[in-house]
Amino acid sequence: MDRFFPNIDKIKYEGPKSKNPLAFKYYDENRVINGKTMKEHLRYAVCYWHTFRGLGHDPFGPGTAVRPWLSSDDPMTQAFDTMDAAFEFFTKLGVPFWCFHDRDIAPEGATVEESESNLREVVSYAKKKQDETGMKLLWGTANLFSHPRFMNGGGTNPDFDVFCYAAAQIKNALDATHALGGENYVFWGGREGYDILFNTDMKRELKHFADLLKLAKAYADEIGFKGQFLIEPKPMEPSTHQYDFDTATVIAFLKEHDIDFVKINMEPNHATLALHTAAHELQVAADAGLLGSIDANRGNFQNGWDTDQFPTNIYDAVEMMLVVLKDGGFETGGLNFDAKPRRASTDLEDMFYGHIGGMDTFARALIIASEMIEGGELSDIVTKRYSSFDDGKGAEFEAGKLSLTDLRDIAASKAEEPAQTSGQRELIEIIFNDYIL
Amino acid sequence: MDRFFPNIDKIKYEGPKSKNPLAFKYYDENRVINGKTMKEHLRYAVCYWHTFRGLGHDPFGPGTAVRPWLSSDDPMTQAFDTMDAAFEFFTKLGVPFWCFHDRDIAPEGATVEESESNLREVVSYAKKKQDETGMKLLWGTANLFSHPRFMNGGGTNPDFDVFCYAAAQIKNALDATHALGGENYVFWGGREGYDILFNTDMKRELKHFADLLKLAKAYADEIGFKGQFLIEPKPMEPSTHQYDFDTATVIAFLKEHDIDFVKINMEPNHATLALHTAAHELQVAADAGLLGSIDANRGNFQNGWDTDQFPTNIYDAVEMMLVVLKDGGFETGGLNFDAKPRRASTDLEDMFYGHIGGMDTFARALIIASEMIEGGELSDIVTKRYSSFDDGKGAEFEAGKLSLTDLRDIAASKAEEPAQTSGQRELIEIIFNDYIL
Amino acid sequence: MDRFFPNIDKIKYEGPKSKNPLAFKYYDENRVINGKTMKEHLRYAVCYWHTFRGLGHDPFGPGTAVRPWLSSDDPMTQAFDTMDAAFEFFTKLGVPFWCFHDRDIAPEGATVEESESNLREVVSYAKKKQDETGMKLLWGTANLFSHPRFMNGGGTNPDFDVFCYAAAQIKNALDATHALGGENYVFWGGREGYDILFNTDMKRELKHFADLLKLAKAYADEIGFKGQFLIEPKPMEPSTHQYDFDTATVIAFLKEHDIDFVKINMEPNHATLALHTAAHELQVAADAGLLGSIDANRGNFQNGWDTDQFPTNIYDAVEMMLVVLKDGGFETGGLNFDAKPRRASTDLEDMFYGHIGGMDTFARALIIASEMIEGGELSDIVTKRYSSFDDGKGAEFEAGKLSLTDLRDIAASKAEEPAQTSGQRELIEIIFNDYIL
Amino acid sequence: MDRFFPNIDKIKYEGPKSKNPLAFKYYDENRVINGKTMKEHLRYAVCYWHTFRGLGHDPFGPGTAVRPWLSSDDPMTQAFDTMDAAFEFFTKLGVPFWCFHDRDIAPEGATVEESESNLREVVSYAKKKQDETGMKLLWGTANLFSHPRFMNGGGTNPDFDVFCYAAAQIKNALDATHALGGENYVFWGGREGYDILFNTDMKRELKHFADLLKLAKAYADEIGFKGQFLIEPKPMEPSTHQYDFDTATVIAFLKEHDIDFVKINMEPNHATLALHTAAHELQVAADAGLLGSIDANRGNFQNGWDTDQFPTNIYDAVEMMLVVLKDGGFETGGLNFDAKPRRASTDLEDMFYGHIGGMDTFARALIIASEMIEGGELSDIVTKRYSSFDDGKGAEFEAGKLSLTDLRDIAASKAEEPAQTSGQRELIEIIFNDYIL
Repeated sequence: MDRFFPNIDKIKYEGPKSKNPLAFKYYDENRVINGKTMKEHLRYAVCYWHTFRGLGHDPFGPGTAVRPWLSSDDPMTQAFDTMDAAFEFFTKLGVPFWCFHDRDIAPEGATVEESESNLREVVSYAKKKQDETGMKLLWGTANLFSHPRFMNGGGTNPDFDVFCYAAAQIKNALDATHALGGENYVFWGGREGYDILFNTDMKRELKHFADLLKLAKAYADEIGFKGQFLIEPKPMEPSTHQYDFDTATVIAFLKEHDIDFVKINMEPNHATLALHTAAHELQVAADAGLLGSIDANRGNFQNGWDTDQFPTNIYDAVEMMLVVLKDGGFETGGLNFDAKPRRASTDLEDMFYGHIGGMDTFARALIIASEMIEGGELSDIVTKRYSSFDDGKGAEFEAGKLSLTDLRDIAASKAEEPAQTSGQRELIEIIFNDYIL
Repeated sequence: MDRFFPNIDKIKYEGPKSKNPLAFKYYDENRVINGKTMKEHLRYAVCYWHTFRGLGHDPFGPGTAVRPWLSSDDPMTQAFDTMDAAFEFFTKLGVPFWCFHDRDIAPEGATVEESESNLREVVSYAKKKQDETGMKLLWGTANLFSHPRFMNGGGTNPDFDVFCYAAAQIKNALDATHALGGENYVFWGGREGYDILFNTDMKRELKHFADLLKLAKAYADEIGFKGQFLIEPKPMEPSTHQYDFDTATVIAFLKEHDIDFVKINMEPNHATLALHTAAHELQVAADAGLLGSIDANRGNFQNGWDTDQFPTNIYDAVEMMLVVLKDGGFETGGLNFDAKPRRASTDLEDMFYGHIGGMDTFARALIIASEMIEGGELSDIVTKRYSSFDDGKGAEFEAGKLSLTDLRDIAASKAEEPAQTSGQRELIEIIFNDYIL
Repeated sequence: MDRFFPNIDKIKYEGPKSKNPLAFKYYDENRVINGKTMKEHLRYAVCYWHTFRGLGHDPFGPGTAVRPWLSSDDPMTQAFDTMDAAFEFFTKLGVPFWCFHDRDIAPEGATVEESESNLREVVSYAKKKQDETGMKLLWGTANLFSHPRFMNGGGTNPDFDVFCYAAAQIKNALDATHALGGENYVFWGGREGYDILFNTDMKRELKHFADLLKLAKAYADEIGFKGQFLIEPKPMEPSTHQYDFDTATVIAFLKEHDIDFVKINMEPNHATLALHTAAHELQVAADAGLLGSIDANRGNFQNGWDTDQFPTNIYDAVEMMLVVLKDGGFETGGLNFDAKPRRASTDLEDMFYGHIGGMDTFARALIIASEMIEGGELSDIVTKRYSSFDDGKGAEFEAGKLSLTDLRDIAASKAEEPAQTSGQRELIEIIFNDYIL
Repeated sequence: MDRFFPNIDKIKYEGPKSKNPLAFKYYDENRVINGKTMKEHLRYAVCYWHTFRGLGHDPFGPGTAVRPWLSSDDPMTQAFDTMDAAFEFFTKLGVPFWCFHDRDIAPEGATVEESESNLREVVSYAKKKQDETGMKLLWGTANLFSHPRFMNGGGTNPDFDVFCYAAAQIKNALDATHALGGENYVFWGGREGYDILFNTDMKRELKHFADLLKLAKAYADEIGFKGQFLIEPKPMEPSTHQYDFDTATVIAFLKEHDIDFVKINMEPNHATLALHTAAHELQVAADAGLLGSIDANRGNFQNGWDTDQFPTNIYDAVEMMLVVLKDGGFETGGLNFDAKPRRASTDLEDMFYGHIGGMDTFARALIIASEMIEGGELSDIVTKRYSSFDDGKGAEFEAGKLSLTDLRDIAASKAEEPAQTSGQRELIEIIFNDYIL
């Protein structure tokens, strides 16, 4: 367990005064907040793709990082070495969960069968590592966007043959997720969208995708997989327009196609690309009973693409944790760091800095959000703001007892203009800053 | 009928070679395209707010335009003068429809009753003008965003008293629209949204709004109003986040609340602010059977607010007309120019230039789109692209006869990789330019 | 001094544990940081326009706030009442500086002379208030964007007559600023830009503007005004394209026209609209020796217009204070809150909440930035990063002693690839969060 | 010459009525417009990188295109095959110019010397191909962004060793460009910028870059290279902030460092990412006497990254050609298609469709812009708009004869408000559409 990160010891909690960048200042996994430990609240996961397979390539150049676990020329040896590195990293960092795409953990073979066999072999190794370490799988998924065959989409591909390849990968990824006890299965439609509307039958493509989801659910039921299905919205990139634009778009899709077994996996960088805050997207999901999980990261407001930076902004994290806590906390979901060190952050230590920074930020946010809820200033503002609907005519309206004409008559009966009530945003911003620690 | 625009004669069609900016080069209202006249296809409307009440104010200064119909100090005299100016403009321009908000046509009074009385009086005058000129009302609506009482919203206001004022205006605007034979009634939720999520109960506000829509429908049924209800999406401005963000968001809302009597009024500038093309928004609506009407205008891609420019870009207009024609054309909807001359375009002629430019653009677009559909190159590309789902196993999948495992087996049975099929965007762009005239 | 805000006492410093929203938790004006008091470091100013003349109007509705100092029908009485309210607010808030546009403090008259006379009269009153309270003027400026005559610009107007009106206002605003001992004079070119490039001679307009700046400087010298001239960049709004797009654009303009007497007044909301961080804009100015002053506020990354929110984000403020402190601190500049309560924040208290929130944020940022500089982790990273240029061949290059061929020969002489050095962004983000208090 | 594109004949001009997508409808290279042929006006170039080396990779997947000229495993054989394919493509397409980066045409070797030797060998082969075909080199450049060693920049790298590698490549790319008779040499600073301001000494980096430019110029003089140096601005991507943000930023940089031998290479997609129109960027360059060349392409307004689409929008092209023609036309510059087929446009034909679409668009734009200049409506509007500065007091001001007080006195002498003059944007948009063919 000291093969790939020999210079890094297990990351410890040292408290807020520590200046050690390889220690936690806020994430104390056993600290209890409102009856649950931080570990239980936050359910941190490390993602396999960026962390172990991503080397920093971008449209203007190849990867920069040199990773010892990728040194073998044999893809399967690489796969096993990477799994060793991953579990060493998970353990030293101290996270309870991990996440993967099929192609992150096992190489694609020359045929469907060979790909399946590769995957099964690696999954079996991963199962052993899980058992040894106590690590759990937050979720698995199929990569339907990297291979050139998916250039026009996976589940929305206009070519039925390619569509079948997508279905095959989903089936196998479900098998793998089930074998590893995954608590969720995610659909992220990297290439599900269009480049130009005028070669596209959007309605037919979305119908295919909906049907595919239903077949996946039927298969999950068949094999006994009980995990939660999740869709991860994103507005654009790589496609010009992605079908799962944002949470509301996904909800419209689910309702249009009568799908009731899917929740939302919200990614902040995707939210901001769609011109929403992460908290907004979570609230929209929560209001529909669909808040599933979070792919924790952060974008750059000056740029228009998916930068997948580590989430270190305390305001964003507090806003998210407020919504999560008020929604009752995660059930099957968690906080998966879908983030990567910058292309120029090439040291092995940078992998740790990124995750530690993110984990401490959300830990701090959990404490702050919990104290804000306890303090009650915000909820008092909200309660008071809507109180006119709590009794009297307002309550009658909510109970469905008033007509449009009744409402008009109430307005007409007023001797004077309704009192002007401040929205108090500036006060709310003071309250937020007062709680920041 | 020469009181306010004495220097402008009725705008005539002079054909593509004319260089007269006060003539149509493409809009020949009686020209028949595929069995309908241009007038019937395009159903142009002039909006009352920008055209007759807007003077060019912006956040950095008051209006600049000086309009003779606003010269009286008496609000009701102003209202009648403006109605005269409007019908003179409609007639000289040669549009068949107009649109209004309640507060555009009649001044708010000191009480609800006085506002109602003002509105009724002006509506009665408008009815007379309609009868005289043959003009029709495309749609009416209530302005629930300008008055300070609506600073926290109309139908989503947290104060029940303000909510009742909103309901009263909707009732009266419905009465007015009905009296004038309006073919639609529009909800544009200028202040329906939030400034900051943390003083807001989004779920409760949206429930109130849904209930209000249902009460409005019940009232419409009661009075015999048969027009189509429409919601106009917009992502932001004036609010930080508008609830009716885009077409998909509105669809989610309608389905969440079981509302089946509302279609979409799509505005291009709102579409682009939401990071969509106008054609995309129309297609999303059409795919859901909800394409209602268009508030024709155009934004500025370099800026992030609602500039409401006249729509003069032929590509955008062709894309929109392709979707409209393929959807079967407008039923109750039309093309309403929700656009205004720039703040520095202060001449009365500029009002005509703006509308003529927009009308000619969509007329040209109608011809081009119709020829493109006739030519068939685009539809051939689309048909061929999805043909693998038209028979064989692809058709079996669409018929619901295959399981996930069946699909996997088809993929596994292939001896080689699916053929690579180009998306041909570059060819499509040549085809578009070939049709541009 | 209790005429307009009778319910508000002087705002006091109560320390970080206070939960009183009408108290400072960090801004302790006499606390000494590195040899200067907080008051001397931060040089807070309140702006006259938003705070006393802004009522919350936006493109979709008129103002909402009802202000007692604007209750008179007589413009000059309004002006004096407003001045009383302003100095009561300044004093209770405890800021040392204020800022104004000519038209904020005195009404425009029917003629140039009448406007001048109004302005002189109010300036004389303001001088008296300054003397009584010890308040100072950070800067004055002329409003060349609100009046309809400036719809095509002030100093860049294509009409020479309008240009003369702009010049007249600048002359008088300089006189007023000089009379009040202003430490700076600001040019913000609200309408200096274009709506459409194709009716515009950008080169001629910018030459006019440059010449006007030189005439203004000559006049300032003539009257003995020693204040610093500042230009405030903004990329867009109200114009489609503003000439003073960002700091670099202003630097190019100043150099093109050999203007050496102007520095930069940086506004964060304008910076972010131009796709920069505020710290970036300050650094560009500082590197050119042109960091003048700050119009402290904040935008909304989800929206594309100038929201002018109060600056309460601690990260942004720390980044800005790091640049300011490393540049040696403000000389004539300061932190002017060019921010306004939201349109729905209609209480008088909201004016205080906004400013207190902003003042506490920058006070906290001053402490944090100062501790970060003292701690030295960041400067160590930077020093080490560039050390290869500090001696040896790198230093020879910097001294101008090497040719392109010499540099090539150094590269060719290396036996192996240069060592890969991490940029360490993730570590830097941990360091930032470690210092946040 | 039929080795790689055997199914494609030389592309011919067939006129506007042709529906053949593999023919020109507007680009008739020998047609004379205002005394120059279309070929001389437009000076089309094909870029080597996207066209022959780009396979469609993006951040979410590897390339999709399969190119026969890249089939060899030996890098030098690949290089020669690619050169053959390129010249076959150039000839069949009928463009007079090409452009390259050093690493596009010749593989990097294990040492600086080996890279130099590879480059010299391929350049010698390219020279032969140029001689055989009459093709010319528009410009060459060095790729200082793809290799991992440049992850922190080339000419602005904080490590002197890496900086020397950048210098070596520039020297060799200058030699290659000179050997091939290149008419320009371009700097595009792919990694010249920063990821986070707080590990960066921007001032020192920019000084290094300025010094490097001067060394490059000295070396060019030494070897007798007479081509024009160009900088290509871009605001972001791959870096968070690119130093050459836009044209104005580059002008500020050039003036700050007294560099007078560099002009601008403007790319439309970079312009729009910087929130400018392409025409704006060209006008800013032209006004400073720095309009050099154009990297013709187009972005996607819905997305925030460099999509490098082919330029097929006729409005954009007309706007650009208006500025170019009014600036006197290209001298050493031209229209280089820095554009690529979409990732899903995998056919060899798509390479032709893309270029033909772009060439026809700019040819059509040349005709339209020339007719608009001939027609004179736009220039009449501009002339009239500024006429008050052409004589009388306006002319005296321009001649430097008036003081600020003189200008004030002119304003004060006016008996009434200046006349209101419309900006006529709506009319201008009609004029644009009237000329579109």
